[in-house]
Amino acid sequence: MNPIDLPPSPVRLQATSAPNQPEPTAALEELYRGFEQELLVPLWTEIGGLMPPHPRSKAEAHLWRWDRLKQLASEAGHIVPVGRGGERRAIALANPALGGRPYATPTLWAAIQYLMPGEHAPEHRHTQHAFRFIVEGEGVWTVVGGDPVRMSRGDFLPQAGWNWHAHHNAATEPMAWIDGLDIPFSYYTESQFFEHGRDEITAAEQTTPDRSRSERLWGHPGLRPLSQPADTPGTPLLAYRWEDTDRALSDQLALEEEGHVGVISPGHAAVRFTHPGTGRDVLPTIRCEMHRVRAGSTTRSWREVGSSVYQIFEGTGKVSVGSKEWRVQRGDMLVVPSWVSFQARCDDDAALDLFRFSDAPIFEALHQHRVQIDAE
Amino acid sequence: MNPIDLPPSPVRLQATSAPNQPEPTAALEELYRGFEQELLVPLWTEIGGLMPPHPRSKAEAHLWRWDRLKQLASEAGHIVPVGRGGERRAIALANPALGGRPYATPTLWAAIQYLMPGEHAPEHRHTQHAFRFIVEGEGVWTVVGGDPVRMSRGDFLPQAGWNWHAHHNAATEPMAWIDGLDIPFSYYTESQFFEHGRDEITAAEQTTPDRSRSERLWGHPGLRPLSQPADTPGTPLLAYRWEDTDRALSDQLALEEEGHVGVISPGHAAVRFTHPGTGRDVLPTIRCEMHRVRAGSTTRSWREVGSSVYQIFEGTGKVSVGSKEWRVQRGDMLVVPSWVSFQARCDDDAALDLFRFSDAPIFEALHQHRVQIDAE
Amino acid sequence: MNPIDLPPSPVRLQATSAPNQPEPTAALEELYRGFEQELLVPLWTEIGGLMPPHPRSKAEAHLWRWDRLKQLASEAGHIVPVGRGGERRAIALANPALGGRPYATPTLWAAIQYLMPGEHAPEHRHTQHAFRFIVEGEGVWTVVGGDPVRMSRGDFLPQAGWNWHAHHNAATEPMAWIDGLDIPFSYYTESQFFEHGRDEITAAEQTTPDRSRSERLWGHPGLRPLSQPADTPGTPLLAYRWEDTDRALSDQLALEEEGHVGVISPGHAAVRFTHPGTGRDVLPTIRCEMHRVRAGSTTRSWREVGSSVYQIFEGTGKVSVGSKEWRVQRGDMLVVPSWVSFQARCDDDAALDLFRFSDAPIFEALHQHRVQIDAE
Amino acid sequence: MNPIDLPPSPVRLQATSAPNQPEPTAALEELYRGFEQELLVPLWTEIGGLMPPHPRSKAEAHLWRWDRLKQLASEAGHIVPVGRGGERRAIALANPALGGRPYATPTLWAAIQYLMPGEHAPEHRHTQHAFRFIVEGEGVWTVVGGDPVRMSRGDFLPQAGWNWHAHHNAATEPMAWIDGLDIPFSYYTESQFFEHGRDEITAAEQTTPDRSRSERLWGHPGLRPLSQPADTPGTPLLAYRWEDTDRALSDQLALEEEGHVGVISPGHAAVRFTHPGTGRDVLPTIRCEMHRVRAGSTTRSWREVGSSVYQIFEGTGKVSVGSKEWRVQRGDMLVVPSWVSFQARCDDDAALDLFRFSDAPIFEALHQHRVQIDAE
Repeated sequence: MNPIDLPPSPVRLQATSAPNQPEPTAALEELYRGFEQELLVPLWTEIGGLMPPHPRSKAEAHLWRWDRLKQLASEAGHIVPVGRGGERRAIALANPALGGRPYATPTLWAAIQYLMPGEHAPEHRHTQHAFRFIVEGEGVWTVVGGDPVRMSRGDFLPQAGWNWHAHHNAATEPMAWIDGLDIPFSYYTESQFFEHGRDEITAAEQTTPDRSRSERLWGHPGLRPLSQPADTPGTPLLAYRWEDTDRALSDQLALEEEGHVGVISPGHAAVRFTHPGTGRDVLPTIRCEMHRVRAGSTTRSWREVGSSVYQIFEGTGKVSVGSKEWRVQRGDMLVVPSWVSFQARCDDDAALDLFRFSDAPIFEALHQHRVQIDAE
Repeated sequence: MNPIDLPPSPVRLQATSAPNQPEPTAALEELYRGFEQELLVPLWTEIGGLMPPHPRSKAEAHLWRWDRLKQLASEAGHIVPVGRGGERRAIALANPALGGRPYATPTLWAAIQYLMPGEHAPEHRHTQHAFRFIVEGEGVWTVVGGDPVRMSRGDFLPQAGWNWHAHHNAATEPMAWIDGLDIPFSYYTESQFFEHGRDEITAAEQTTPDRSRSERLWGHPGLRPLSQPADTPGTPLLAYRWEDTDRALSDQLALEEEGHVGVISPGHAAVRFTHPGTGRDVLPTIRCEMHRVRAGSTTRSWREVGSSVYQIFEGTGKVSVGSKEWRVQRGDMLVVPSWVSFQARCDDDAALDLFRFSDAPIFEALHQHRVQIDAE
Repeated sequence: MNPIDLPPSPVRLQATSAPNQPEPTAALEELYRGFEQELLVPLWTEIGGLMPPHPRSKAEAHLWRWDRLKQLASEAGHIVPVGRGGERRAIALANPALGGRPYATPTLWAAIQYLMPGEHAPEHRHTQHAFRFIVEGEGVWTVVGGDPVRMSRGDFLPQAGWNWHAHHNAATEPMAWIDGLDIPFSYYTESQFFEHGRDEITAAEQTTPDRSRSERLWGHPGLRPLSQPADTPGTPLLAYRWEDTDRALSDQLALEEEGHVGVISPGHAAVRFTHPGTGRDVLPTIRCEMHRVRAGSTTRSWREVGSSVYQIFEGTGKVSVGSKEWRVQRGDMLVVPSWVSFQARCDDDAALDLFRFSDAPIFEALHQHRVQIDAE
Repeated sequence: MNPIDLPPSPVRLQATSAPNQPEPTAALEELYRGFEQELLVPLWTEIGGLMPPHPRSKAEAHLWRWDRLKQLASEAGHIVPVGRGGERRAIALANPALGGRPYATPTLWAAIQYLMPGEHAPEHRHTQHAFRFIVEGEGVWTVVGGDPVRMSRGDFLPQAGWNWHAHHNAATEPMAWIDGLDIPFSYYTESQFFEHGRDEITAAEQTTPDRSRSERLWGHPGLRPLSQPADTPGTPLLAYRWEDTDRALSDQLALEEEGHVGVISPGHAAVRFTHPGTGRDVLPTIRCEMHRVRAGSTTRSWREVGSSVYQIFEGTGKVSVGSKEWRVQRGDMLVVPSWVSFQARCDDDAALDLFRFSDAPIFEALHQHRVQIDAE
């Protein structure tokens, strides 16, 4: 049995004298035996858990330290080969409250991936949407539909479902980065397809251009290449470079200093990675953003429907999630469950940059999104 | 512990000599202990289950017999009171492969609800979307936002999230009907809100009009009342009456006989219940349809992403779901898991009418829907 | 030269001492001659007319009496044959301020069409969107894509662009109705296509069914036939029957009497004809509505961007358009230019029913629509 | 009378013996007199002109030479002051077939605007959508909602309707640029509003920053500032800089050379200026694009519904529009009427860059757009 599959345990009902429950009589016991036999469960025993006043996440807030992630990934790099079958040397965050399964949150997968010098990860495609984010290092290219895309510190590489892709490390050093996917959501909703591609990519695909073809077509602000369709579900732009993201965040903080609109709250700049052909989220199920908190500043505290994963990109500070609080630094990853408050405070010396991804597009598409700013 | 919650079991990894797994060495064992300690799970041990070539549902095809459902609901009617706390005398189908939880499929809740003469079910509202479908009986009114809506055989009553609603049985007989909701989906994605309303509705709300106010505003074909907003997430029309549905299906079969387009395949008529202000599905997460198979005819066999629940409304025939096959009759309910084939064959004497609901709008909104017609 | 085409008169500019104009000097005169020679016109001489503070319509409010329209159409019925080339015996309202051209307003065509017993109007199609509305009479069928559609008093028949259509009068009496199209808009924007079809339709198409095939597929409230595409630009429902429209309006007034929402202002009920597959306007460029004013009631006075044409369907009353006011009765047609106020008052004895069409969808699609309710 | 207004000539009908016309009899003459008296025009006399088989534009293809435009604008700079009332020193192209009116095409306004050193053009706002394109020069800033936007060669500055704006020339040289607006369309459809703003802008608004605040917020590829609303009708990005446009076009031609997709036909690169928050056209009624034809290459010949205006930005070549053909060079402006073929051929020495704007978004929004590539 796969550890993520649950035993098909039969229906078990128990008459109790708990509040709001029918009086435990022999008749009730007999009724419950009838329910069990016919595979039926009443609402009245379940409603408290199933239909709470507001989301009560099964997941827990939790923090993973980057140095430990990297160290274990590096050890795996020496022990575990990369190849067809296992497909990727990816190691996923397992939320402590989600039963040992590789789910950072109920909907999101977050993993560190590691590739040794000269290694290739074989081509495949899947309907799960994915992205890479690079907190440090360089040397690996992701080849998407034959287009090699450079990966360097600060870059964000979205990967919409059903695109063929492979990785190759052209450098002399190993490289680590994080992968985000909607694997748990696809698994839960049973909507996923997967295919193997070629075991080897061609020499032409192993080139290491500074800019991918997708960037040359789509990476110009507000300019749509007329040869390309615009209304695809996921973004056609395969890399969002750090120099652009960094400048956008700096511009917002500078505008604030000059007395103009720009930040979302004092000292808090933020950009969302978007599909240049539609302005929507880069991926139909995953929202990705970069946040910058000015030195000494604190974000507002807010909660929203759906879950998020953060990775500290740069700087140090304190992050609180519900009743938990951690000091954080580069590379640390943490989980914010649904409807749990989040707030970040930057130390006084330098800005705090946080990469964030969440499942918000799912809820917006279904008209179920809610956000609440906590009173100060 | 609520039976639907899972034990927060820790991460457990085991080095094995299975195909596509790294060689089980001492180093690997040590690596796995490190993973466990840091709450990490590798992709390579999970990919087979998590990322299959196509959806492999955790749910099973299963059939529930209407006479047993009604009998148990009737017994509950005499034993289990209806009131605040338990909220509704609703008894849910528990898919045999979903761990004893009240889930017909991973995303859908399907229950029989039962109300005794003179009883009231107290007012509440929730973000979960809901509908009622009445396979037989009458006498109960659902009061939605103060608007009493009659429920009679063949009627379909959608109930978009966050509307206040209550039920009252104005007749001298008990009445049963089915409820469909997206409770499992909301529970899994942790996006639900719930509020109690008034314990008693007013005398004015306990009237028993033949047509609800919503029908008087919205129940005229192609006519939008200008006093009402049109672009709401869920339908403003609170009842779709059997006489309309029946006529629409009869018209399609008559058109087919006259040699015109109308049916979706020979002998198979079908309508979808839609939001009259947008033409979209009545509920953002649930699709509802009525299908009619001509006497002696067989539908095509098809599979799609996402799960469905059917209730036989009228007629007899044979239904196959994947490798299972059942003879069916009025009221029987059955489940079609994701990517499992469905086909219905009507007996030779009279048409077979099937009510169907599914989670397809979720996948369409996220660009993940697929349908495949099986070759004949 | 076609009377609707303008003489290509050359540019003529005159230096004047009017306010806001440059001083009329010899140099200015010379400059203006240079402009004329190079086909140039300055903004400063035109801005007052071209860019007014709010729309100032070139059209005038005007009323046409139904008895005169019918009488002239009847005379044409005896003199002017119907056939290929002229295509239709349609006689258009020519707004007195639009240069003798057959434009009711700058964007809308409104005509009375007349067909003698046994006559046919030949098949053609065009990208202009059209509808028929029947203020009295019956006996003619419009055949749309081979589907004969009955036309009777009160019925509304939309006809989206590029559908083949013909008419045949199967009765022993002549019949008149009104046609509405976006001919002036299409002519002005130069976006129209036109093709002749067959000169004769088949015997099968000359049947006279009570309900068209389109109504049997689409004329059931909130029910979409699954065999049909839903997201077409124009409505697939080819007839909106008076009994439905009448009932919808009566329901709104009854709801008002019972103290419930329903009317758009006291005593004023209104429905919009909509595409059942999308909820949008029946035609991409033309909005069509039916309004009912309770005996003794008055509508609010409002103005909006874009123009409208009204036909009195039933009842008597007083209508004011800007500074004009008329007593009106069955069949009378009148024009409301852009940004001119409209108000209707119903006489005390019986309700006043008004059919209305306008170009509002053009402005809504382009984000240029504005409505202003006049203070009372 | 404003020269753009037409005399309200009465209806005039003439019985003729032309083909497809009713026989000219005394009865017909009498009928026509009745029509005239009642302000009616029959379809059968007008259908040929009003409903042609395909668009037959009232406009003509025409070319304006940049040196003459600049010379006349310069003369106006010395004679005609800029100020409240006339508002702008803008001189519009008047299509030779549009009756001396300042319309480049039936829907589009195209003008050269000219500002002397130190001059200001006063603040106003209007619902007409506008843009500036700069073929040469620099020194002027457009202040939009208080945000000064630099204008330099190759820059494109869209200006969605109802934004306050003014211009100031901070340099020691005069400057010319082109303005494009939907003035004729707004005038024809009678949907426009206009308001004066302040006569003087503040000193703070007269600064001359290299980048506008809008660019600092929105000018980063694929990055949405979270503090800003995204779904506005017009683009929030107020300048699209030449260096970005140039690079995007060069990239497409380089991709073609490398054997990859990128150009729309051999040797023909093209980008559309788009709203970064929605991916749609920058303005609801105007499409703006930049095209580059490789030295020695020829575009395909195509026609489409709606009209275009081109300005040669750089290079020399030959352009054919319908049966006309011109040699063109920097700054020349030309008009392509609806459904008239366009083709450009670049000379052999250097690329030909063409700026284009059109009314295509109007037709796309109304489902009336058609494009036809001419067979080669």
